[in-house]
Amino acid sequence: MSMMWTVKVVGLGVVALSLSLELLGWLFCRRQPERTLHEVLFFPSKVACVEHIFTPASTHPCLCSLPHGVETSFSRFLRHLLSATSSLDLCVFAFSHMALSRAVLTLHSRGVAVRVIADKDYAAITGSQIGVLRKAGICVRCDVGSVCMHHKFAVVDGRLLITGSLNWTLTAVQSNMENVLVTEETELVQPFIKEFHRLWEFNDPARYLHSSDQKT
Amino acid sequence: MSMMWTVKVVGLGVVALSLSLELLGWLFCRRQPERTLHEVLFFPSKVACVEHIFTPASTHPCLCSLPHGVETSFSRFLRHLLSATSSLDLCVFAFSHMALSRAVLTLHSRGVAVRVIADKDYAAITGSQIGVLRKAGICVRCDVGSVCMHHKFAVVDGRLLITGSLNWTLTAVQSNMENVLVTEETELVQPFIKEFHRLWEFNDPARYLHSSDQKT
Repeated sequence: MSMMWTVKVVGLGVVALSLSLELLGWLFCRRQPERTLHEVLFFPSKVACVEHIFTPASTHPCLCSLPHGVETSFSRFLRHLLSATSSLDLCVFAFSHMALSRAVLTLHSRGVAVRVIADKDYAAITGSQIGVLRKAGICVRCDVGSVCMHHKFAVVDGRLLITGSLNWTLTAVQSNMENVLVTEETELVQPFIKEFHRLWEFNDPARYLHSSDQKT
Repeated sequence: MSMMWTVKVVGLGVVALSLSLELLGWLFCRRQPERTLHEVLFFPSKVACVEHIFTPASTHPCLCSLPHGVETSFSRFLRHLLSATSSLDLCVFAFSHMALSRAVLTLHSRGVAVRVIADKDYAAITGSQIGVLRKAGICVRCDVGSVCMHHKFAVVDGRLLITGSLNWTLTAVQSNMENVLVTEETELVQPFIKEFHRLWEFNDPARYLHSSDQKT
């Protein structure tokens, strides 16, 4: 009788353990997709104050005339950008949006390693923020090899990809039909990290000066 | 003794069933990520003949002077586009690339339901393929509500999203630094399907004419 009880207890123990493992495995598998962030933002964005995103700890309420406390495509975009804690690799054709420039300067002042690749023609246009970033000490390299450096992507902390049709301009944000994808999917993020590295090396001014020297 | 055996057999049976379920669950969870297609294409693309992608069954070798049998970013792009079997929803700012126009016309002639949303200003430019698509009987709606319809995305069979910085022009494909994401990730595809539907309804000419009637 005692042996039968042993068999029962051991049997039930194994069943319980096995079911627990299965449950854990199921929960783990279910949680896996939830951990990969995906978000799509469409523009034009509603216009709203974004001061609280820059200064979340401020006790003074913002007195500007824009709507407050409204979450928009642009405020989501800004939050993802400002989530950077270690690095920001930015590769963008047109960059004249003041709030986005402020965001990049804020990250730089927080000690985030910022690298920017810009289109050389657009960088020279009035209103372009590329010169402002350079003056603040941010590493900027202008594309020298193609007709047009038409990318509009950012990689945050080597983890989060922000990319789409949206140039970093006020017109794009407030007037145009645009899209931005935000994703942590490794298979999408990694190729952009690799391409940024390739373009960064390719547009190294030292390399460029060297090749000019060879020509003369 | 026979009862003990029954307990043993039933116990082992339950354990075996439970372990099998766990194994199945594990295999299912492991396979899940492999099934979701993700691909990133960078441009400019190498130039190569794409005739074999349009006519894979042809026994006549192409005699053009371009390199043959080379897989490029553009040929990958074209393959994904031509994989459509039921529907193609296309929302693109600039569309003048002849091979891409041929691809859309090919899908239309195969019975694929093609819908195109185009920017009204770019559609009127010389070289734009929008008029060619319209003449072939493809449903085209021009954006009437924004400063610029700047999207460059396609949804294939309500399943595959093709989007990025790349306009559908020869310059973008052959000269510019550009990116295109190809993904089946539902969380990324679904918002684009919804946005296409919204833009399609918003730019319904009937609705537009009606609102003009109201004004006059």
